[in-house]
Amino acid sequence: MNVYETRREKIYDWMARENISLVMFEDTEDRRDTSIRWMTGHPGDALLFLSVDKQALLVPWDINMAKIFAAVDAIIPYADFDRHSISALKAGANYFKTPFGSKVEIPPVTPYPIFLQYVEALTDFDILCRSGGIRAEVEKLRTIKDEEELRIYQELSVITNTVIELLEKNVREGNLKTEADLALFIEAEGRKRGCEGTGFETLAAGPGRSFGIHAFPAYTAGDFATPGLSILDFGLKYAGYTSDVTLTFVREPLSRSQEKLLSLTEKAYKLALSLMKNGAVARDIAQAVDVFFDQSKKRMPHGLGHGIGLEAHEAPALRNRADNAWVLQPGMIVTLEPGLYDPVHGGCRLENDILITETGITVLTNAKIIRL
Amino acid sequence: MNVYETRREKIYDWMARENISLVMFEDTEDRRDTSIRWMTGHPGDALLFLSVDKQALLVPWDINMAKIFAAVDAIIPYADFDRHSISALKAGANYFKTPFGSKVEIPPVTPYPIFLQYVEALTDFDILCRSGGIRAEVEKLRTIKDEEELRIYQELSVITNTVIELLEKNVREGNLKTEADLALFIEAEGRKRGCEGTGFETLAAGPGRSFGIHAFPAYTAGDFATPGLSILDFGLKYAGYTSDVTLTFVREPLSRSQEKLLSLTEKAYKLALSLMKNGAVARDIAQAVDVFFDQSKKRMPHGLGHGIGLEAHEAPALRNRADNAWVLQPGMIVTLEPGLYDPVHGGCRLENDILITETGITVLTNAKIIRL
Repeated sequence: MNVYETRREKIYDWMARENISLVMFEDTEDRRDTSIRWMTGHPGDALLFLSVDKQALLVPWDINMAKIFAAVDAIIPYADFDRHSISALKAGANYFKTPFGSKVEIPPVTPYPIFLQYVEALTDFDILCRSGGIRAEVEKLRTIKDEEELRIYQELSVITNTVIELLEKNVREGNLKTEADLALFIEAEGRKRGCEGTGFETLAAGPGRSFGIHAFPAYTAGDFATPGLSILDFGLKYAGYTSDVTLTFVREPLSRSQEKLLSLTEKAYKLALSLMKNGAVARDIAQAVDVFFDQSKKRMPHGLGHGIGLEAHEAPALRNRADNAWVLQPGMIVTLEPGLYDPVHGGCRLENDILITETGITVLTNAKIIRL
Repeated sequence: MNVYETRREKIYDWMARENISLVMFEDTEDRRDTSIRWMTGHPGDALLFLSVDKQALLVPWDINMAKIFAAVDAIIPYADFDRHSISALKAGANYFKTPFGSKVEIPPVTPYPIFLQYVEALTDFDILCRSGGIRAEVEKLRTIKDEEELRIYQELSVITNTVIELLEKNVREGNLKTEADLALFIEAEGRKRGCEGTGFETLAAGPGRSFGIHAFPAYTAGDFATPGLSILDFGLKYAGYTSDVTLTFVREPLSRSQEKLLSLTEKAYKLALSLMKNGAVARDIAQAVDVFFDQSKKRMPHGLGHGIGLEAHEAPALRNRADNAWVLQPGMIVTLEPGLYDPVHGGCRLENDILITETGITVLTNAKIIRL
């Protein structure tokens, strides 16, 4: 059984328990879902139908691509259905001879007006579209990385750390001067080492722009690492999986406020790290950091961290919100990324990728605050 | 009245006609909507509330960014609502003193399960979530570029054409050899000329990978423009707006099948160009191309073109589908991009950006099939 079949097996078991005959996944321009890659190896732009009798049908946009990448039982081109998801679902139910009256689950992100169209077009089935259904189940399964995924993250972390070292060296030596210099260096060095690209658009913000949580534009032809605080947030994508790290480059002279931002961010990072372990409640960790910043009358305008995987942001969330019920478990990989931002003094953020293990944690990446 | 106020004025008029008190727009990680930028100048990650009494309230994730970019009547940080859209909508209705019982429209992409939460939380209002509502209206308005947008596209086309020229020159001279060389060259040259970045991930596929409609990965460290057909599909993003062009680089020796793909693609391009004009039915043009390819037993596995603007793909569609009712009108800017793909011989595509005018068309970009 290949890795994709092993993953699908867990879904089939869940379908049997939930008494669901057919499940549809959709990865299209309007609604992305990397779960299709997780379950089949096909990189994207497709529908996937799983039948409770353990059969997987892929309906891809690009049939040539699917023949190379998709580990499934059957493939039918999306063009055969005029690229209409509702027609494809009808055909899928027909293909699997899904019994009339049985439960068919569609993605919970299906817009309300389109949901109504599904219900109208598929009167022979009980159409489910719900929170807490198939997508929540897949999301939960994906939080715990399997052996194949841990192997990928091992390799990806080595590449990410090599690029971090090269970045520090080349900034110190004056070879990388502008925001674009750094961002394009990452793109090139990552691909040289077998990466598919970056996991998200690299954010490189010199001192004049580092106050933005997500600088806009993401990077420019302007200076980086001039006096003050510069933020570099990037992730490399390898075999579909992304790393996610943030370095702050610091050049003197600094104001007392800037020193304060740096010192608080480093302390918050260490505090959070000391709390991360198997069984820890994610929200408690985020809350501890919020309380810590609050003592200095500072406020972090974003979450403390998030899971990474086939997406740059996935479960579990590491944030202080009432609806966050995640508990850290072995096999989870999450970012830890405290940061503070000031419209005048600039911003700083320190972010690394942390693997939760049975006995503690492994810090996979070596991002840091770099004083030039 | 600034350009954003002028655009919002059209929405307010529509709201009055439709008897809608309050409209919500959402641009978040889960559901992107560049319309917020179109209506306020704020580049993203925000909610926008428009009240029929002509007031605009922005609820941004990044308050520092909003103070710089957003041309609105009021700003309240999203963090004040725990980054919950439903809490923010309640607060928005309260802020505007929206009358109980009146119509409040939310985005039609709202997932069915979340729609139910809105309805439950806002019992005092008539919550609309529909196709053909506000989003369709904004989409329609955005198809016709205004003076400011035409000015931006004028400048963007000049930059895009300069980069096309530089690409051809540097490939001919052997300075750009790999897929990554070309992609990173575009990123760097674009930003040097004031672009925010690229409008989408550049697709650079050498002869071994050009069979893919959208090559995967988008670009690699592998060779480009070796013998056979190589595809380069890119767009530059300037002041939010994207261009979208595709060049095919051809190096001999070629098989007869490859010559055939090229010749058919060029003929299809010319055929479509001859049909594009004010009043032309978009579907008819796409159908003519499908029929043309069909005569040679070929099939184009994607649409013939699409509108461009703040998104790389927006209305109007130039495709042969029963639900495509778009008619070309002055001020529309659409791509024209016939292409053919063969798993053995590779693919070719030719794509330019076309402005529809009162009296004909203007081909804004100079992409072509380049024989090396």
